[in-house]
Amino acid sequence: MSWQLTSADLADLARGATLLGTGGGGDPYIGKMLVERVLGDGSITILDPDELDDELFVIPTAQMGAPTVMVEKIPAGTEPTLALRTLERHLGRTADATMPIECGGINSMIPLVVAAETGLPVVDADGMGRAFPELSMETFAVYGVHGSPLALAGERGEQVVIDTGTDDRQMEWLARGITIRLGGVGHIAEYAMSGADVRRTAVPRTISMALALGRSIRLAREAKRSPFDAIAETLSPTLYSHVRELHVGKVVDVERRTTEGFARGRATIAGSDGDDSLEIVFQNENLVARRGGELVAIVPDLICVVDHETAEPITTEGLRYGQRVRVLGISTPEMMRTPEALAAFGPSAFGIDETFVPVERLRAETPVA
Amino acid sequence: MSWQLTSADLADLARGATLLGTGGGGDPYIGKMLVERVLGDGSITILDPDELDDELFVIPTAQMGAPTVMVEKIPAGTEPTLALRTLERHLGRTADATMPIECGGINSMIPLVVAAETGLPVVDADGMGRAFPELSMETFAVYGVHGSPLALAGERGEQVVIDTGTDDRQMEWLARGITIRLGGVGHIAEYAMSGADVRRTAVPRTISMALALGRSIRLAREAKRSPFDAIAETLSPTLYSHVRELHVGKVVDVERRTTEGFARGRATIAGSDGDDSLEIVFQNENLVARRGGELVAIVPDLICVVDHETAEPITTEGLRYGQRVRVLGISTPEMMRTPEALAAFGPSAFGIDETFVPVERLRAETPVA
Repeated sequence: MSWQLTSADLADLARGATLLGTGGGGDPYIGKMLVERVLGDGSITILDPDELDDELFVIPTAQMGAPTVMVEKIPAGTEPTLALRTLERHLGRTADATMPIECGGINSMIPLVVAAETGLPVVDADGMGRAFPELSMETFAVYGVHGSPLALAGERGEQVVIDTGTDDRQMEWLARGITIRLGGVGHIAEYAMSGADVRRTAVPRTISMALALGRSIRLAREAKRSPFDAIAETLSPTLYSHVRELHVGKVVDVERRTTEGFARGRATIAGSDGDDSLEIVFQNENLVARRGGELVAIVPDLICVVDHETAEPITTEGLRYGQRVRVLGISTPEMMRTPEALAAFGPSAFGIDETFVPVERLRAETPVA
Repeated sequence: MSWQLTSADLADLARGATLLGTGGGGDPYIGKMLVERVLGDGSITILDPDELDDELFVIPTAQMGAPTVMVEKIPAGTEPTLALRTLERHLGRTADATMPIECGGINSMIPLVVAAETGLPVVDADGMGRAFPELSMETFAVYGVHGSPLALAGERGEQVVIDTGTDDRQMEWLARGITIRLGGVGHIAEYAMSGADVRRTAVPRTISMALALGRSIRLAREAKRSPFDAIAETLSPTLYSHVRELHVGKVVDVERRTTEGFARGRATIAGSDGDDSLEIVFQNENLVARRGGELVAIVPDLICVVDHETAEPITTEGLRYGQRVRVLGISTPEMMRTPEALAAFGPSAFGIDETFVPVERLRAETPVA
């Protein structure tokens, strides 16, 4: 069923989307602020993917760049709509709706900014079911919808259209080059598709799931219940049914560099009570977690670092020495674990020499809280 | 008057255009081969700029990249026409003619490749009156025609459209980023304009001048006359009326690196008979020549390194230790020396802290041969 989203939902949505962003996807405060500024007292229609007309024409919108730059280079707000309009002109066809390409503090919000500016509805689905660092890492592409042509808009009104046919990795490579030359952040419209394509290729209902997650964490805190129980209860009936506590401890080392348009690095989290340390490697998003050298969770499963008490998600660019955190592993939907999906965004796509093993098998026993 | 160009003209044209390329503009052998392959026994109509219909729609075509890469990465040949077609589709309008953006071994030839493939005529004019390293360094831009939208095509069929409004430097910056990510070479269509714009903003008749130059050098060699006299006689009645011999000597040092998509470096040419050495600084093209520390020629005037006997032009990527060379200074047309023109492609545009002084004033006395 379609539903209306208002400014009152944004704080919960930002929190939940940032959790699903698995360390990436951008800063939730900035994302929330961008939508609030244009939405005011209005509302946005959120469309259920199962109810879309087959012929509905959907143009997803997003921000691309290194999260370390995104927090310093805040968009004017008009760029994503300019990207959408640029792609519409290029295709000679106007969009009936927009949609996120990933979950995250920024990229769950950008389509809402476009919706608030244009009046378009937003489809409750996305193409990553989490956040990934590269534009080619989309379930859309895995199941046959390609990203080209892509439109990219810059803060000084620059408009770029990139068409690499069915080669989504080359599209990512060229768009990243433009983004770097725009100062590290660009806004994009890509993966234009029909309603039927959305149902076939997108991870469904991730906006409503993020909102439910963020709300359940808040309500648990207000009721003095465990927010970790709330997370597990909220996800249990969804496609993300397994939640595992991977580690509790203190951030003791963060190595981070912004290179080639990405934030890359690793974080070490010392264990409580003399336990082994957990090490996380990230490229914008958390990719792999090892504890005492042993694999405990790996991409595309979600590795989420959160405050040890409040469960507030912490992005990779927000990691700081001394933070007391819990690390959660969350299972991704089966459509993200097929051989084709793992070829696009499994460990080998990041140069990690490990075979994907589902988090619920790696940590069969661990309760979440 | 319009005229027909055939394969028999290409060797002379390539030689003359490479001389005017002032060290850049690409390898003449590759440029000639690209045209021969598609032209065969056919001919290309070359249009005189003074006879263009005001409303004629002209889309210039070119290759962009570092000459050091261009000689190793030879285009399939279809990319410039793909760039033209991409820009036509973007603009919703088909070209009536194409035109060079600069003089040079490659970029005087690319429009001929497009013409041979499409049947379009080529306008006898260009936007640099020589070669320059950056797309914003065009008399077109100086006199009010801007480069955007630009279309760029890659060897695997990649199509990119870049629109930065009136900001031609930002267009150059973004297109260079794409070119680097395509491996160092891309093909472009840009500065679309009317016949009236061509007359107002282009350097006229540089194709026929290059052909006349190349032919006069060949005929002088065949007649055992000085090719340097032939160069001076050919240029004397044109807009490039002053030719000066700046130096005779031997290349004793070349420092060259390909960085940020450009070939940058310097060459030292020892003097004959114990004379001072001449030092040339280049960025794709020769920018400034100093002899014994004293300025002898500076951009936008032409600094041309040629074989000391045959006058065969030598590009910056062709400079080698031990070559015996002459260095010529050639005056550029007055439209390239106005304050607006010097702001776009005078010394300061290259970070050179010198005031432009015309070569005919710096070397008032020196005969050419």
